[in-house]
Amino acid sequence: MKIAVFAGDGIGPEVTAQALRVLDELSLPGLTLFEGDVGAVAYRRHGQPLPDETLEMARAADAVLFGAVGDFSCDDLPRHLRPEQAILGLRSELGLFANLRPAAGFPGLEHLSSLKPEIARSIDVLVVRELNGDVYFGDKGERASAGGREGWDAMSYNEAEVRRIAHTAFRAAMGRGKRLTSVDKANVLETSRIWRETVIDVAKDYPEVTLDHMYVDNAAMQMVKAPGQFDTIVTGNLFGDILSDQASACVGSIGLLASASLGERQTEHGTFGLYEPIHGSAPDIAGQDKANPVAAVLSLAMLLRHSLGREDEAVRVERAVEGILAEGIFGGDLGGNATTGEIGDAIVSKLLTI
Amino acid sequence: MKIAVFAGDGIGPEVTAQALRVLDELSLPGLTLFEGDVGAVAYRRHGQPLPDETLEMARAADAVLFGAVGDFSCDDLPRHLRPEQAILGLRSELGLFANLRPAAGFPGLEHLSSLKPEIARSIDVLVVRELNGDVYFGDKGERASAGGREGWDAMSYNEAEVRRIAHTAFRAAMGRGKRLTSVDKANVLETSRIWRETVIDVAKDYPEVTLDHMYVDNAAMQMVKAPGQFDTIVTGNLFGDILSDQASACVGSIGLLASASLGERQTEHGTFGLYEPIHGSAPDIAGQDKANPVAAVLSLAMLLRHSLGREDEAVRVERAVEGILAEGIFGGDLGGNATTGEIGDAIVSKLLTI
Ligand SMILES: CC(C)[C@H](C(=O)O)[C@@H](O)C(=O)O
Ligand SMILES: CC(C)[C@H](C(=O)O)[C@@H](O)C(=O)O
Repeated sequence: MKIAVFAGDGIGPEVTAQALRVLDELSLPGLTLFEGDVGAVAYRRHGQPLPDETLEMARAADAVLFGAVGDFSCDDLPRHLRPEQAILGLRSELGLFANLRPAAGFPGLEHLSSLKPEIARSIDVLVVRELNGDVYFGDKGERASAGGREGWDAMSYNEAEVRRIAHTAFRAAMGRGKRLTSVDKANVLETSRIWRETVIDVAKDYPEVTLDHMYVDNAAMQMVKAPGQFDTIVTGNLFGDILSDQASACVGSIGLLASASLGERQTEHGTFGLYEPIHGSAPDIAGQDKANPVAAVLSLAMLLRHSLGREDEAVRVERAVEGILAEGIFGGDLGGNATTGEIGDAIVSKLLTI
Repeated sequence: MKIAVFAGDGIGPEVTAQALRVLDELSLPGLTLFEGDVGAVAYRRHGQPLPDETLEMARAADAVLFGAVGDFSCDDLPRHLRPEQAILGLRSELGLFANLRPAAGFPGLEHLSSLKPEIARSIDVLVVRELNGDVYFGDKGERASAGGREGWDAMSYNEAEVRRIAHTAFRAAMGRGKRLTSVDKANVLETSRIWRETVIDVAKDYPEVTLDHMYVDNAAMQMVKAPGQFDTIVTGNLFGDILSDQASACVGSIGLLASASLGERQTEHGTFGLYEPIHGSAPDIAGQDKANPVAAVLSLAMLLRHSLGREDEAVRVERAVEGILAEGIFGGDLGGNATTGEIGDAIVSKLLTI
């Protein structure tokens, strides 16, 4: 089994290092790691944020463990050379169409949320975001118009694209509370009309799942007002970008949340995927041993579960994280004083007891 | 001066009636009211949600006081006959390009928010949403594709469109805290690139305003985490739909929030505009004397300010509303037991003392 490790920029390398220590501790047989450059570091070394070697390494792997990309030095680069193109390029080139973003309150850490504790505690939602289509990957450009220069982007979804992500979401809902909320803007967008009709059609294959539909503006409202009402959400690329970040903010502890981006390719024991913390590269605190490695470690747990078929180890890693958090071992971002390395140490020690 | 009153569906008529009582109490000279049908009631009477007579009435007026549209009976109608087409049609036909959505906590009512009281109390934001462009009004349709039926929508903004709304937003920011946050997705969308470049250009005319830029996903996060950081926000039609509803939910009392949609046409004493509560038609509680008329009354205050140039009366109406809320006069939606009529009575009595 091959894991490609793309640590990236800012705090990416230091948090990924802790995830790798945890992986090492699990002593999985037959595992090979490869390291590749992405983001600003790749641009500096190879002149592009997603070099061909990196892409080839990902294609040859069973899973990608991703850190974070982004760096002040790239602020003035043209868009195709900017670090975020690495992540967009990996998503499209590797066919990573399904982004899974779980957001749930951690017991005892509700005070981190700006929501009232009883409301923060009620959050346990999985946002399933489509990652390969929508206005992200449609044609786009600039043209002359009567109103001067005009920027334009084409938004679309076809039935095959919606069907694929809908199946992922219904299956995920089956493993959770069996309730799926499809979010769209079908009162305005034709893209959403096809989206909604197709989701309704796919629902026939999952009679046990209760499906409802919500307009995106209402979903953004409900996610603040009563986030506990949601079980699984499925939505397009653009709305998913917004809602999944909003859901994370409702939980309140960005440094704790992980994500998986799954493709269609099956590996020996699971599905090919890319795993990354939802936090960014935080260049302002990079290299100071201050970053929270929990999201990186929980990304590793998702990798173990979805790409390597190692549910037992995934659960062990998650338990270890819950254990140290319950003991109050965390860094400045959560009001504690542990360093990145100390949090890694604590997770590794806890793992040995589970 | 002419006001077109479109009360619409559900609770629209009963909340609008209270706003009209308040207007009556102000005894403004030379005011004529016209009533027109919109929404489901218009569809039932005239076969369309926005009849020509209604549109003509709006064109001839200085301002439109709007209630709400929407009705269960229309759920299965094709999109062009549905009640929300009335509001989309009014926006485009009347050139209502600037939606102003103030969201601020009401002192003493912070407990209504799902946010912690000290965070809810900090909210005082004006969202300026563009209403005539973006993916709302671009070409759209369905076509065949390799992946089956495909829904598509064209998103765009040109410099003239952005310039116009940016000026509105900068002027609004000048009258507030002089800080403007422009929200876009310039790391992905060409539409947003033109948006951002144009906003930066317009900023030169407002050297006193501090401008910053935020990606929409981050804005949705910040609006939960630390909504007090925002003063004035300017954004496109789609992101504005989402963020303005999210901001309202953060305040927590949907029944209290009003909005203005302004056009370019100047009236004798102000700007032509349409004013409406941000809540919907709530057909489930219609006709039960339960609806909260405060948002409708505050919409009237915005109408007095922006279209009639009656700042003094606008402030008096707002003070009257604050007064009754401070006295604990409110309905079931806010945990009280006053009826729609009783709240209207209380506002009218309070107005006489101001
Ligand atoms: C960096 C950016 C292009 C990206 C996105 O919009 O998808 C990010 O916000 C995310 O959600 O992973
Ligand atoms: C009804 C709908 C078309 C409308 C919109 O999306 O603009 C509504 O959500 C609003 O914000 O006024």
